[in-house]
Amino acid sequence: MARVYNFSAGPSMLPEAVLKTAQAELLDYHGSGMSVMEMSHRSKWFDEIIQNTEASLRRVLNIPDNYKVGFFQGGATQQFAMVPLNFLTTGTADYLVTGNFSKKAAEEAAKFGTARIAASSKDKNFTYIPDVKAIDYDPNASYIHICQNNTIFGTKYVDVPQVDGIPLVADMSSMICSEPVDVSKYGVIYFGVQKNVAPAGMAVAIVREDLLGKSAKGITPAQIPTMMNYTTLLEKDSMYNTPPCWCIYMTGLVMDYLEHEVGGLEEMKRRNEAKAKVLYDYLDSQDFYHNPVQKEYRSLMNVTFTSPDADTDKAFCAAATEAGFVNLKGHRLVGGMRASIYNAMPAEGVDKLVAFMEQFRKEHQ
Amino acid sequence: MARVYNFSAGPSMLPEAVLKTAQAELLDYHGSGMSVMEMSHRSKWFDEIIQNTEASLRRVLNIPDNYKVGFFQGGATQQFAMVPLNFLTTGTADYLVTGNFSKKAAEEAAKFGTARIAASSKDKNFTYIPDVKAIDYDPNASYIHICQNNTIFGTKYVDVPQVDGIPLVADMSSMICSEPVDVSKYGVIYFGVQKNVAPAGMAVAIVREDLLGKSAKGITPAQIPTMMNYTTLLEKDSMYNTPPCWCIYMTGLVMDYLEHEVGGLEEMKRRNEAKAKVLYDYLDSQDFYHNPVQKEYRSLMNVTFTSPDADTDKAFCAAATEAGFVNLKGHRLVGGMRASIYNAMPAEGVDKLVAFMEQFRKEHQ
Ligand SMILES: Cc1ncc(COP(=O)(O)O)c(C=O)c1O
Ligand SMILES: Cc1ncc(COP(=O)(O)O)c(C=O)c1O
Ligand SMILES: [Mg+2]
Ligand SMILES: [Mg+2]
Ligand SMILES: [Mg+2]
Ligand SMILES: [Mg+2]
Repeated sequence: MARVYNFSAGPSMLPEAVLKTAQAELLDYHGSGMSVMEMSHRSKWFDEIIQNTEASLRRVLNIPDNYKVGFFQGGATQQFAMVPLNFLTTGTADYLVTGNFSKKAAEEAAKFGTARIAASSKDKNFTYIPDVKAIDYDPNASYIHICQNNTIFGTKYVDVPQVDGIPLVADMSSMICSEPVDVSKYGVIYFGVQKNVAPAGMAVAIVREDLLGKSAKGITPAQIPTMMNYTTLLEKDSMYNTPPCWCIYMTGLVMDYLEHEVGGLEEMKRRNEAKAKVLYDYLDSQDFYHNPVQKEYRSLMNVTFTSPDADTDKAFCAAATEAGFVNLKGHRLVGGMRASIYNAMPAEGVDKLVAFMEQFRKEHQ
Repeated sequence: MARVYNFSAGPSMLPEAVLKTAQAELLDYHGSGMSVMEMSHRSKWFDEIIQNTEASLRRVLNIPDNYKVGFFQGGATQQFAMVPLNFLTTGTADYLVTGNFSKKAAEEAAKFGTARIAASSKDKNFTYIPDVKAIDYDPNASYIHICQNNTIFGTKYVDVPQVDGIPLVADMSSMICSEPVDVSKYGVIYFGVQKNVAPAGMAVAIVREDLLGKSAKGITPAQIPTMMNYTTLLEKDSMYNTPPCWCIYMTGLVMDYLEHEVGGLEEMKRRNEAKAKVLYDYLDSQDFYHNPVQKEYRSLMNVTFTSPDADTDKAFCAAATEAGFVNLKGHRLVGGMRASIYNAMPAEGVDKLVAFMEQFRKEHQ
């Protein structure tokens, strides 16, 4: 069958060119006589792969030298625990709850200390982002945690909290590499790779060096489970144990693609804004479909919408799947539909989806 | 270049037929129009993959119904922490130290309670396995932990500890699926997949159901980091968060291969014994190379040997690499050479290695 337009929220589409490279090299990477999947992680072959991956990630994201970059297992969810275990030095942190994953991050942190909900947008079903300048932050907070793009509710931050002396920790799982980010505003950035970067099975963390070597109040660094200790794993260059080599390799291919095929994150942002505009403009131009998000906070990556009722939503998803637009069903917490239009979704995928939506509207309104 | 004979201790060779299937399906899995790397883990496509993988793993390993099977991130090293966090209910456990990884497992457990070294083979540089019947086990131990095959030192257990009422926990990373195992002798079996099963990035745990729902003495189950809680992750069928989908898919392909191409673990054992015999017989037949392990405990998977001196070892590894036998350098803790001859190493790889060794011997003795 032809490749479908896959609107999954993650794991999600990868650039076809990247998949073709992976396919071509699968049994013999660069004349090594081995698959990347078979390589010793201590071999010169893999050493080159991991070094190049980190270097291109650093270039693409413009990561300053005083930040370490690490490759971790356990997805973004494991980061939810690692962040407090390593950085909750005062015993309390401020969490901004703007959706399901920021809520989960706060709940996980509460296992290891106080996760104070400094702000929440639950009052309007997470359809907006609280004004970060109007929040009363705890001066004793070890850090402020945000989820920069809310995958399920389709919102994103415009401004991010900036409080002197309190590091900002951001889950960027569903927007990383979709646009440039000023890394220097953050103490820690982390993301699961399975949306914009690579197949599932890895998280990347970008950690400002001065935050390392510590632990949550009440425990010593030596009491952190080793696989959750950023300091140990970063000191070992993500090779404390066998890393997720294939994910690292795929991340490298995607970074190459972003750098050399796309031309960097400014251009990626331009393309993503153009794609999102097509879809939001259409959503705003008729009254069959509806997007509930306050306009300024609309995500470039995850676009939610509903049709007039749940039965029609269902019929829509079935017809869309039939037509080669897959995984459009909204998350159960929101219902309706969600089109995740990550970096690898081509513009024509969005154009064709809109054409399909209009066709469906005509038949059902 | 032609595919090399890769003697890496892990990640290591995968069956060429499996790699070819992965390659053929890489851009379009079974007419889905997607790569497995792009699939939503909640899709019907992936649901079928994970279910089939578990089912074939259960058949191949003959896992009784009262054991749960889960797919975890963090490799075997993360299991080192998960085991005590979940099962150290009395606050103490017995660890048998027979090499580097069992030592590391004990050190990790000591973060969460007492990891009593009930026996060790350090006195003879880990060249044997202590007599498991002669050990004084602590009647209060929550479990007895062993590393069933010692990847670095090239030894394996013949008998395993069996103490009434005390579950046996075994790290089978470097021997899983190399021969049949009587799962009912164990409370927990875990393994990193990157030797005999799949690319790096996943561990599998097989857990007897009655052990679940608990936690280390001094903490409640709710205080275990969620990604380290077997009960939570197993209840969610390894889908608490996004699982390492590609590793699960590859595990399924390898299990299919074991079941249908090889014909099961009895046959796999026969082949592995035959391969190992060729190498050990050769090692015993001359006095240039030497294997230090007490014969009855010799590993079928990791065969260590030395030449007369370190310089010759080095020359050997260089010449071997040149000739297409790669990753033969021994672990730094042992020196010399190590040929890891996992399931996917073809018999001819070992035959040719022995021919090469003999040639090298003639030129250097
Ligand atoms: C914003 C965000 N954070 C965290 C997660 C959880 O990631 P993982 O499944 O890798 O643990 C997701 C997954 O969809 C997400 O979208
Ligand atoms: C027996 C054994 N246990 C544990 C490990 C550590 O596994 P991982 O690197 O997946 O954490 C290894 C790795 O080689 C091993 O051989
Ligand atoms: Mg959300
Ligand atoms: Mg580094
Ligand atoms: Mg060992
Ligand atoms: Mg199950």
